[in-house]
Amino acid sequence: MFVYSMQNFLASIHFMKSIIYNHLLINGDRLNQSIARLAQIGKLPKGGVKRIAYSTEDIEARNLVMHWMKELQMQVRIDAAGNIIGKYSGKYPDLPAIATGSHIDTVPCGGHYDGAYGVLAGLEVVRVLHENQLKLDRAIEVIVFTDEESTMIGSKAISGRVINNPGYYRRPDGTDIYTCLERVGGNWDYIAQARRSSQDIAAFVELHVEQGPVLESMHKQIGVVEGIVGQRRFKITVQGSANHAGTTPMQMRCDALVAAAQVVLAVNKIGNTPGQQVATVGKMQVSPNAANVIPGWVEMSLDIRDLSSLHIDSLLEKLRTHLEGIAVATKTQISLNSCLHNEPALVEPYLQKAIANSCQHLNLTYTHLPSRASHDAQEMAQITDMGMIFVPSEMGVSHDSGEYTSPEQCTQGANVLLQTLIQLDSHY
Amino acid sequence: MFVYSMQNFLASIHFMKSIIYNHLLINGDRLNQSIARLAQIGKLPKGGVKRIAYSTEDIEARNLVMHWMKELQMQVRIDAAGNIIGKYSGKYPDLPAIATGSHIDTVPCGGHYDGAYGVLAGLEVVRVLHENQLKLDRAIEVIVFTDEESTMIGSKAISGRVINNPGYYRRPDGTDIYTCLERVGGNWDYIAQARRSSQDIAAFVELHVEQGPVLESMHKQIGVVEGIVGQRRFKITVQGSANHAGTTPMQMRCDALVAAAQVVLAVNKIGNTPGQQVATVGKMQVSPNAANVIPGWVEMSLDIRDLSSLHIDSLLEKLRTHLEGIAVATKTQISLNSCLHNEPALVEPYLQKAIANSCQHLNLTYTHLPSRASHDAQEMAQITDMGMIFVPSEMGVSHDSGEYTSPEQCTQGANVLLQTLIQLDSHY
Repeated sequence: MFVYSMQNFLASIHFMKSIIYNHLLINGDRLNQSIARLAQIGKLPKGGVKRIAYSTEDIEARNLVMHWMKELQMQVRIDAAGNIIGKYSGKYPDLPAIATGSHIDTVPCGGHYDGAYGVLAGLEVVRVLHENQLKLDRAIEVIVFTDEESTMIGSKAISGRVINNPGYYRRPDGTDIYTCLERVGGNWDYIAQARRSSQDIAAFVELHVEQGPVLESMHKQIGVVEGIVGQRRFKITVQGSANHAGTTPMQMRCDALVAAAQVVLAVNKIGNTPGQQVATVGKMQVSPNAANVIPGWVEMSLDIRDLSSLHIDSLLEKLRTHLEGIAVATKTQISLNSCLHNEPALVEPYLQKAIANSCQHLNLTYTHLPSRASHDAQEMAQITDMGMIFVPSEMGVSHDSGEYTSPEQCTQGANVLLQTLIQLDSHY
Repeated sequence: MFVYSMQNFLASIHFMKSIIYNHLLINGDRLNQSIARLAQIGKLPKGGVKRIAYSTEDIEARNLVMHWMKELQMQVRIDAAGNIIGKYSGKYPDLPAIATGSHIDTVPCGGHYDGAYGVLAGLEVVRVLHENQLKLDRAIEVIVFTDEESTMIGSKAISGRVINNPGYYRRPDGTDIYTCLERVGGNWDYIAQARRSSQDIAAFVELHVEQGPVLESMHKQIGVVEGIVGQRRFKITVQGSANHAGTTPMQMRCDALVAAAQVVLAVNKIGNTPGQQVATVGKMQVSPNAANVIPGWVEMSLDIRDLSSLHIDSLLEKLRTHLEGIAVATKTQISLNSCLHNEPALVEPYLQKAIANSCQHLNLTYTHLPSRASHDAQEMAQITDMGMIFVPSEMGVSHDSGEYTSPEQCTQGANVLLQTLIQLDSHY
């Protein structure tokens, strides 16, 4: 009888808790006001935002976010990499936390949403819990990662993948990383101590604007990210023979640009084979680059991204065969040299399911898609289960003052984040 | 009886004269020594020659050539455009002259032969006549044209095609054309007076190094130039949409470089259709030119040359059709804007025949070919019959310190010039 009552009582509690949490919604106005407020810091005359990592504007924005965290009785600390970690405690202090967050630094002319949205939505989730005097079983951490737009040193420190060479992190203006980290309360000498693990973060979820046109073109409200694509970057060099464009007959030429044009089309063809890969030649330099001289030398970039590393390997193998054929046909030499190799970071199926569940629960349309841009989440995937939620970007525009996601879309994404964190809290 | 004797006597004279002139040969050693001597002026440490028009070196070289002309009892004058005109008088002062010549200015790192060879071979022709105390019926003019390498102002003044805007002729270093012409004994204010006509120049023949690889590759000693090709130059602009190279799916791109690559190949295809045309994209600029951004805009040059203006028109028509197809297929806008339009200058069939006859007479192998580079001769073709003789350029190299034509080849070319001038003297 007692046993039955106790079970019944616990079931009732669980049921009531479910009802309460399932009906929680974030305050959309408050969220969008905080986005607009943060966008005042580093505001550019034409509407964009300039808040380069470690700058005065970045520091001002960091202080504002920490101020907001403290208002919510979060414990705020800054790790050696300068990451701001705001902790909203849970019922069971020994359980690993559920973390969310993103970055608030921007490119030189960025928009209002890239990064900032994820941080402020995380804070809004905590605000809703705080104002309803609710606590999850686990602590929620909202992390503001240092310098996502350039070196990703913040998330790399947490994953333990910072390069052990301070020179690598020197800023374009010459400032060394010691000085930079000091400015934001970090310390290069102790950067190894910033490392975290699944022992203290059970899962990490990043909410971000898509920065691409897929959701908008598919008329979907939410993107359930399947993973962050692997990225390889190469320098392709074509060596031909510079010669007089008037006096050298067509059949006696070794025109490096004619070869390079075929390379560009081969890369584009590889990109357009079935699959979700993208392949781009974005940069090209021609030498001597004069109207009356046959190009003797061309250097260009190749950027190729996909969720599967094996698929990238197979595409590159096909491309190499193409390049050999082009070199023979054009009497040129073509070389391919690796500059960057980032492995894909896949999202745990359970996290994709939890995000999709949240969308269904909230009656929001969604689709699964890869993230083809880099995010701090890819580093977090090195140490714990990682998930990502996308909201649409108007016209796919990002890294530009024209970046736009509507207040309604921002609210929808933050509600998905809230519901997802609630699910994860019970899952782990 | 008297009549018969007189005819007989005249025929004998004509026969003897033919024998004398037909056996005349230039002095190869003397010619090559003069080439080497002139190359001392403006000699660069690595063996090239820098003798930019109007420079101290150019003036020193001009003085040396005038000194040589005067040694040969030539009448030397400088016209308003600074052209040096050395006249070796003929038997009949009222007959229009036969002219030859070229230029002695160079590109910033030129060789020993481009231009200088033609001037010095002309002087050597006069030397041979002078040392043998021979005169042709007509005067021989050896012309040193002003500033061939940049504005061709010298030959353009003779053809009456100088642009009536002194600002156009300002040097890259800012020196105005008044000052430049004054330095070399000319006068901008009277430049119209430099104009000549077929009334005083019956024909003009320029001897020049080929500056291309055709003669060498065909193992021919002499090139009989059919004409100087017409040249059209265009700026081709491709407007696409710059976008994130990661987040923009392949099928949603308007990649300006993918379109531009197809333009380069279309131009190359046009160049490789049957005919003697050349077509080149030598210059290309990509924007924003970053590895992780899809190119939004590309600008490139098109240079197309052929002896037939109609043929160029028809190739351009084909190209335009290609470009329209590329624009549609790549969702870009492609425009073609004219920058330069030089009509072809054809060589009179009789002058080609005279040059070919001279080669046969001298047992030299030859071929007919177009000149695909510009020369002062193209301006002379505007006012009188024009011919051009080419000698081989090793590996086709020109406008470089590595430019080379052997002493033997220089001698052969000058002998062809001598025999051609002799033929022309009787023809007109």
